[in-house]
This record gives sequence, C-alpha cells and structure tokens, in this order.
Amino acid sequence: MGMVHVKLSNLRFWVFTAAIVWLNPALMFELLKSDTVTRARLGRLTTAHGVVETPVFMPVGTQGSVKALDPRELDEVGTQIILGNTYHLFIRPGLDIITEAGGLHRFINWSKPILTDSGGFQVFSLAKIRKIKPHGVEFRSHLDGSLLFLGPKEAMAIQRTLGSDIAMVFDDCPPHTATARELRAAVERTIRWAGECREQPRGDGQMIFGIVQGGSNAAFREECARAIVGLQFDGYAIGGVSVGEPEPEMFKAVEQTIPFLPENQPRYTMGLGTPAQIVELIARGVDLFDCVLPTRVARNGTAFTRKGTISIKGGAYKRDWGPIEEGCPCYACRNFTRAYLRHLLNVNEILGLRMLSVHNSHVFASVVADVRTHLQAGTFAEFHCEFLANYVPTRRVLAARQVIHQ
Amino acid sequence: MGMVHVKLSNLRFWVFTAAIVWLNPALMFELLKSDTVTRARLGRLTTAHGVVETPVFMPVGTQGSVKALDPRELDEVGTQIILGNTYHLFIRPGLDIITEAGGLHRFINWSKPILTDSGGFQVFSLAKIRKIKPHGVEFRSHLDGSLLFLGPKEAMAIQRTLGSDIAMVFDDCPPHTATARELRAAVERTIRWAGECREQPRGDGQMIFGIVQGGSNAAFREECARAIVGLQFDGYAIGGVSVGEPEPEMFKAVEQTIPFLPENQPRYTMGLGTPAQIVELIARGVDLFDCVLPTRVARNGTAFTRKGTISIKGGAYKRDWGPIEEGCPCYACRNFTRAYLRHLLNVNEILGLRMLSVHNSHVFASVVADVRTHLQAGTFAEFHCEFLANYVPTRRVLAARQVIHQ
Repeated sequence: MGMVHVKLSNLRFWVFTAAIVWLNPALMFELLKSDTVTRARLGRLTTAHGVVETPVFMPVGTQGSVKALDPRELDEVGTQIILGNTYHLFIRPGLDIITEAGGLHRFINWSKPILTDSGGFQVFSLAKIRKIKPHGVEFRSHLDGSLLFLGPKEAMAIQRTLGSDIAMVFDDCPPHTATARELRAAVERTIRWAGECREQPRGDGQMIFGIVQGGSNAAFREECARAIVGLQFDGYAIGGVSVGEPEPEMFKAVEQTIPFLPENQPRYTMGLGTPAQIVELIARGVDLFDCVLPTRVARNGTAFTRKGTISIKGGAYKRDWGPIEEGCPCYACRNFTRAYLRHLLNVNEILGLRMLSVHNSHVFASVVADVRTHLQAGTFAEFHCEFLANYVPTRRVLAARQVIHQ
Repeated sequence: MGMVHVKLSNLRFWVFTAAIVWLNPALMFELLKSDTVTRARLGRLTTAHGVVETPVFMPVGTQGSVKALDPRELDEVGTQIILGNTYHLFIRPGLDIITEAGGLHRFINWSKPILTDSGGFQVFSLAKIRKIKPHGVEFRSHLDGSLLFLGPKEAMAIQRTLGSDIAMVFDDCPPHTATARELRAAVERTIRWAGECREQPRGDGQMIFGIVQGGSNAAFREECARAIVGLQFDGYAIGGVSVGEPEPEMFKAVEQTIPFLPENQPRYTMGLGTPAQIVELIARGVDLFDCVLPTRVARNGTAFTRKGTISIKGGAYKRDWGPIEEGCPCYACRNFTRAYLRHLLNVNEILGLRMLSVHNSHVFASVVADVRTHLQAGTFAEFHCEFLANYVPTRRVLAARQVIHQ
C-alpha cells in the first residue's frame, strides 16, 4: 500500500514536471554541430516566440517596420527573427502606445522572435548633447530636443515593455576614433552597466545578451569579455564593430573577443555586415547578425547578389531582360526584369525600391540558409572559400584591405 | 455533284468563319442588364487580355506601376484592368525599351487588360511651352525640356506599341477656365483628330474609344458627341471632366453627354472620382472609371472608407486598435491597426503609405463590385441611395454643392 502510494507520488511528480516542461519549454541555445575546418557552428536558439536556426541574419525594423517590407514579404524571404530599436521606439510611438497594444509583437503584427537593442548605440551616435552619468546617459532627443535619460535600468524596463525575446544590455559604444583612454572608460562603464542590467527584472521568457566592447585593443577585449561572461548572460554580442572602422580592424576585434566567449552560447556581431563579411564571421564562430544594408542600399537602387552589389539604376541594365539575380526564387526575381526595375528606380516609383528590398533581404536570408545546409552536410569550408572567391567587395572594403596589406 | 460542291463550299466557309471567331473571339461590350430605376448598367467588356465586368474602376499606373502596389496586391484587391499613361511612358522609359520588352503588359508584368490614354490631357496640362498645330501639338517635355510632337498619328502609334487593350483617341482637353471660344476650338479639334485617329492602324484586338469634349456647354457636348459617335468607336469617354471644375458642373457635363452616346457601348468618365461620385456616375449610366485618388491620398495618410475619408495621421487614431475600416477584408485591415499605421505614417515608414494604398484600392474595387452585385440582384437603386446617405464628401465637394444650391 505504502509502495503504491510512493509510486503514485512519483507518477504525479513526473506528470507535473512534464507539464511544466511542455508549457514552458527550455529557452536555450543548442550547439548542434561544429565545423571541423573553420570555427563555424550550427545551432538552434529556442525563444518565447519560436525556434531560430543559427547562423541567422536579422533584418532591422528600427521604427517597428523593416523598411518597405510587410510581414508576409519578410516571411517569404525566409526571415526567422527581426531586430527592433529601443531608442527609436522609446521616442516614437512611445511606450504607452506599445504597452496598450500588448507589446511590440502585437503592435507591429510579427509573431516570430524579436531581438531589441538597448539604445546604447543610438544614444552615443544619434542623440544631441549627451551627458554620461554613473547610471546612464542624459541626452536630448534627436527629434525634438526633449531631455531624456537612458541607463541600464531604463533600457531593461523599455525592453521588458516591448516584450522582445532577446534583450541587449545597455552599453557604452565609443566611435572608431576613440582614444585608448576613452576605450578604457567605455569598457569599464560597459561592464558596470552590464551588471546593473543583469539585476533588472525581465519579461516572461525574455533572454538577455551581454555586450563586449574594447575597440580593436586585444587587452580591452579580453578584459571586457571575461568580465561580461562572468555575469552569465544567455548570449554574447561583440559591440563596437560597424562603427566606421575598416574591415580588417573589425575582423581583428572579433578574433580578439571570440576565444573568451563560451562555446555553448550564441554569439552576435552587432550591425554587420555584407554577405561576404557574414560568411567570414560565421567561419570565425559568430551565430547572429543584423544589418540595415539590405533595405538601406535598396532605397538607393543597389542590389545584392552572391557575387557582390550592382547598381540597378545604371545604364548597363536599360535593356537587361533578366532578373536581378539569375536563378533567384524571390518574388522580385520571379516577376520583374532588371530593365523594368531600373525604369521604376529612375522615375522614383516605390515598387522599385520595394522589389530591391525584397530581393536583398532574400539574398541575406538565403546565404545564411545555405551556410546552415553546408554546416549540416559538413561542406561549409568549401562553401566558405567558393563564396568568398566569387564575391566582389565594394571599392571601400577593397581599399581598406589594401591599406592593411601594404 | 454541283450541289455537293455547293454544300462543301458552305461547310468550308462555315468552318473558316468559326475558326476566325475562335481564334479571335469577338472583342465587344455586352449590355447584360439595365437598372429599372436609375440609368445604371451591368455589362461585360471582352478584351484581348480577358473579360472586364462593368461598372469597373481602373487603378492608374502612370509610369508603368500603380503607385506603391505590386501586381499581386492589385490582384488581391480585385483589380480587373489598369490604366497606363501614354505621355509618361513615351518620355520614360521610351518606346524602344517597351518594344524590346514585348509591349507594356510584359514590361510591367501585368497579364490582365490595360487601357492607355492618348497623352492629350498631359500635353495640355503638364507640358511646357506648347504650340498647337493642325495635326497635333509641339511641346517641350516637362522633364528635360526636349522638343516633342504628339498628334493623332503619334498617339495611336505609341498606343499600338504599348499594346494596350483599349486605346484612347488624341483629344484637345481645355482647362475648366476655358472661354466659349476656346471650348469651341477644342471641340472642333477633338472631332478632327478623332477622325484622324480612326484611320490609324491598331494593334491585334486593340479597341479604340472616342472622347467627347465641350466643357459644361450643352450645345458643344451634343455636337461633339454626335460627331464622335458618327465615327463609330468601340466605346466613348467623356473628357474635359476632373479638370478643376466643381462637382455639380462635372455631373452637368456628364448628363449633357450621356443621351447622345449609344446604349450598347461602354461609357467612360476620365479621371473620376471619389467612391460617392463613382456611384452617382454609375446611376447616370457610366461604366468605366479611372482615378489617381486611392493611391495619391494614401501617400498623404488619407484612407477612404465607405463613409468618406479619414486622415490616419490624426491624433484621434493614436490609440485606435481597430482596422482602417471595420469589416474590410483587405490585407491592411486584416493585419494592422489604425494606431500602428498612424505611427508608420508619422515616422515616414513606407509600409504606412503602402498599406493605405492597398486599403484605398480595395475600397474602390469593392464598391464597384458591390454595385455589380446589386445591379444583378435588381437592388441598385436602394444601394445607391443608402451609399450616398452614408458617405460624407470632403469639405471642398460640399462647398461646391453649396454654391450651386444658393
């Protein structure tokens, strides 16, 4: 009798535990496979709004919209997760509106995962007249000059209200031109603020990623990475890249940081990059990427292909009856010719920049999808070499490489 | 033997004729039903690119794109036929490009019918420094000032190249402020040029519509209508409306013209109008409409509803969690709230104007679709009264009515 009772209790306990697991599946990163040649990794990130297969590219929806695209188009190009900007959404429409809407997902009608940045980057790059204080930054809105304050506490509270699946810590992101003294101050502040962020309450199932600063100074990067990892976050970003530095310095900063990040957690380089840079960074062990490039250059008439960028506005495409990129299955390539898109761009028809935004977003999503396929098949190293051999970087990137090689 | 021969000949003749009919089905207008209370008509227009159920609203694709919309969205809102502008397409991308693309349908990837205007309206409204000559107008491009010439011969040749399903004659469209003397000259020129257009070759299965001018002068309208109808076109447009005149004058001009147009052919008021005006014009016997309003006002943040327009940018919608229009099945209303669209419009996100363009285009298409349903059911008169009772016109329209009623 006693034994039956014990068994029943055990059963109850088991059922109870299974129900908890079923109702609230572990939010976590699984490292599925590591490449045997490069440092690339195949992973799976389980968030409150679904699973994200990594490596992954996140289109940027700064103001609650990935520029020019609707949610269906984002879905169709293969988007798994998007990024929202805390600074911009905090200023407009403001938190009262997003709270009333029931969070950012519902406000913008996007049911898949969202990562939000902390606003740190924007406070340091966009805001007018800022004053760094112990627990954050006092600044004037870039929009109407009103006095605002953002710090670890505020940034976490905003991201909790937005209801993002992944929140980022509030960091001090100095420009590429920062002196060693400024870099040091930024690293110290970033570490202190990361600790403060860690103590803030978070939304249900909301993950938090730490950010490593330190420019391209190896000592600072190591120090910052060790301290941030010590705080035990759900993932780690490499910040202070894509802040105007030449490409080689960016790679250096990443290479200086990666060794100090835990193998079994996701790694994210903020604000990067071109398809070639993304493939290069994946080979160095990065899992997450975000960049405004695909939609921003689309608005200037530039299309990404797997061989580099082309300016569709150019006279060369006036009578080009092929798609933007041969063999591309995106809506733009299935339906329109380069000649037609060139016409649309030249007469300022919105459909032109829309279709380039669709195509470019598809290129970014499909390159990382191909990377995942090759990682699964164990052929990433070959893909990596072939992709880079075929990809012609922009003149700016080439010029920066030249300087380093001299 | 002789009889058999005759019979065989007859058979051959019949088979031959049937083959012609089968290969080139009659391009024609069928008057399916006439309302018993109003002058509204239900019809069917068979074109080289498919059937158009009338009354119909044609979205305007001035430069080869209905602004901000893609072909899939046009399809989804219920678009049967679009309008292309000869003047604009002639200037950019130019006929060489469209010829090489295989015509306008293929260039813009739209497989349903297209109606093209003749460029007459634009030559008289857009072009700088024009000189009216016997067989057309010499003018300078509004774009780069280059010297161009458009007349009946040129307009028909361009429309033949564009490959539109319905071509319009080249007419003289004077402004609302024209004197009686100017109106008379425009009527005479319009008649003469219509005759010249009639003699030009046309594309395979391309229909041609005549245009009646005459301002709001009853005698001119009758004279012009009789002459144009005498030339036997496939359909008839009432031009010289939507040229800045107050609404009552527009209705007067239509009412002065309609009695002289054949019952069994399609009638088209060019450049009109709001949903309420369209319902009013349908009640007066008009079958085809085109207007830039749905997409143009969308770009200013204005949404059409069946009760009039609303400015979504307005503070009133800041916390409005309903769709643009309750019960509307369009993509924008199924997916987004007024509060979100207001935010998008206020931060200049393209998705905002895109979604208003989708919704507005859906409103125009669905109002005429409802009209067709009611005409079929014999309940159009009731629909007509109810629709107008619920629709609040703009202040400008109301002010114009006031002037007339005093």
